[in-house]
Amino acid sequence: MTTPSSLESLIEALRCLPGVGPKSAQRMAYHLLQHERAGARRLADALQLALAALRHCQRCNTFTEADICARCLSPKRDASLLCIVETPVDMNMMEQTHAYSGLYYVLMGRVSPLDGIGPADLHLDRLLARCDDGQVREVIIATNYTNEGEATAHFLSEMLKSRAVGVSRIARGVPVGGELEYVDSGTLAQALRERRPLAG
Amino acid sequence: MTTPSSLESLIEALRCLPGVGPKSAQRMAYHLLQHERAGARRLADALQLALAALRHCQRCNTFTEADICARCLSPKRDASLLCIVETPVDMNMMEQTHAYSGLYYVLMGRVSPLDGIGPADLHLDRLLARCDDGQVREVIIATNYTNEGEATAHFLSEMLKSRAVGVSRIARGVPVGGELEYVDSGTLAQALRERRPLAG
Repeated sequence: MTTPSSLESLIEALRCLPGVGPKSAQRMAYHLLQHERAGARRLADALQLALAALRHCQRCNTFTEADICARCLSPKRDASLLCIVETPVDMNMMEQTHAYSGLYYVLMGRVSPLDGIGPADLHLDRLLARCDDGQVREVIIATNYTNEGEATAHFLSEMLKSRAVGVSRIARGVPVGGELEYVDSGTLAQALRERRPLAG
Repeated sequence: MTTPSSLESLIEALRCLPGVGPKSAQRMAYHLLQHERAGARRLADALQLALAALRHCQRCNTFTEADICARCLSPKRDASLLCIVETPVDMNMMEQTHAYSGLYYVLMGRVSPLDGIGPADLHLDRLLARCDDGQVREVIIATNYTNEGEATAHFLSEMLKSRAVGVSRIARGVPVGGELEYVDSGTLAQALRERRPLAG
């Protein structure tokens, strides 16, 4: 091979990005060098800055530049509600609903036996401390409705059973705007089983 | 929004990668910070090193750390053959065939009227100098068989007509191992039109 070593190192380094294989890494490297040199410089700087500045919020575990993030410090949030999500992206999705004003705990992962990730790998001591602090009255488990998310929810609900907090799970059913014709039968069966009485 | 600014900068910077939109950039940033801090550090270093070390080979236009790349300097290559490709990736593909021992010229792009990229944007003076250097006897145009690649090939063949070099184009037809049943009719029509007489 006559690929220069600095180019090979760059291609290799790009493979740490999720979903980037050898072919994509090669294409990305050539694209950056040919068309995005300024962008590449910005990316290098942003990576170094983020690595140096960001750590986990001591209360909700998301990424923050301070010890405790702005959301956890906000007096506008309802401290009696604690919503558990898998990732910061999920937290952002919840925020975009504008339907929740409580606080969060970000697991930064999920129980995934196939990947060898058990409950111990989630470092839940911070979450348990939150649940025992006397402020939280209800914990809302908002992990994904995937197999791993369900396993995580099951584990969390077992763990929180003995605690003096209510535990709920976000609802599962037909999506808003969804037509029964196009909903998978598993979802429809759940929507039927978890039907709600209507006032009237 | 309560996203820390260093995190937002990282997400924004990741979008300079080809094919990475806002959602992927967010996922990549969280992945790097949570699971790949060492990889992120390596990536930052590799970007800076590559930006500083790599430039274009003065002969073939590919990326190199020297003025002229190792391939162009190799005495084992046949200097009378010059293969024109769109990108370094295409050059690597040609090399992997082990069926070509000549030299290359990498366009680092293609004529693409829809994207506003005309022949002038390809900076072909270096290529013309190669074709006039007295060593090159045949130019093999190996741009893609896409609309843009074909437009580029057409422009190049017109440009090289007046030069004292032979000009050829890589063959188009049914892929090796391909079945007629699954080849699109445009390819099959071309394969028929460009049929070759068999010895016998």
